Amino acid sequence: MNCIFCKIIAGEIPAYKLYEDENFISILDINPVNLGHSLIIAKKHFVNLFDAPADLLPFTGKIIKKISEAVMAGTKADGLNVIMNNNRAAGQLVDHAHIHLVPRFEGDGFAHWKGKGTETKEDFEKTLGSIKKILG
Amino acid sequence: MNCIFCKIIAGEIPAYKLYEDENFISILDINPVNLGHSLIIAKKHFVNLFDAPADLLPFTGKIIKKISEAVMAGTKADGLNVIMNNNRAAGQLVDHAHIHLVPRFEGDGFAHWKGKGTETKEDFEKTLGSIKKILG
Repeated sequence: MNCIFCKIIAGEIPAYKLYEDENFISILDINPVNLGHSLIIAKKHFVNLFDAPADLLPFTGKIIKKISEAVMAGTKADGLNVIMNNNRAAGQLVDHAHIHLVPRFEGDGFAHWKGKGTETKEDFEKTLGSIKKILG
Repeated sequence: MNCIFCKIIAGEIPAYKLYEDENFISILDINPVNLGHSLIIAKKHFVNLFDAPADLLPFTGKIIKKISEAVMAGTKADGLNVIMNNNRAAGQLVDHAHIHLVPRFEGDGFAHWKGKGTETKEDFEKTLGSIKKILG
């Protein structure tokens, strides 16, 4: 399979490896937002949140917390974002399910997306209804 | 406690509620990036990732996947970001642990933070060492 993360997991491509267990590996992102920007990657190949069974997603509180705390302390960061991007429209670049841990520093210049503030009560109610209909 | 999410959970403040179970609630974000932007909130009050015990974090693959799929289908989105901000430096605004589900649309104009691309091999190795020392 021509997947860069699968090749890293198989040891065919080098990476700055932070952590490894039976199901997950954690490496430094090679194109970091800030140094210390790390990834948690499921060893089994799934494209993303929508493709993976719920219990095989890399949402493991224990591992996310353990590595996040080490990233914070190791980089002396002021904060940290946990991010999972799903599909190109959401910025996913590698089609193998992974979570970003991004250490953040006061004034590092990375602004958050702002809300538009133009939504009406009717907009919210219509959206709520559309989502709830699918949730069942 | 003067926490807006605790008040929503207690039913003292109204919210557009999508989902509720014993441990979590999901509501529409009142200041959405895009309509359908939802939150998953732990019912018990913890400040964030660093404050909460690992097993009480709202990283539950089953719930994240279930609500994400409904948000995608209900808003006909092209992608979705799962985001948890921890501390002010990372954009956390409400000090009660929560996860954002942000539906994304092709060309919605929300760019990702880019890497600087100026990090050297030595930078990576030094950072790796600092984090691994703490991971043990």
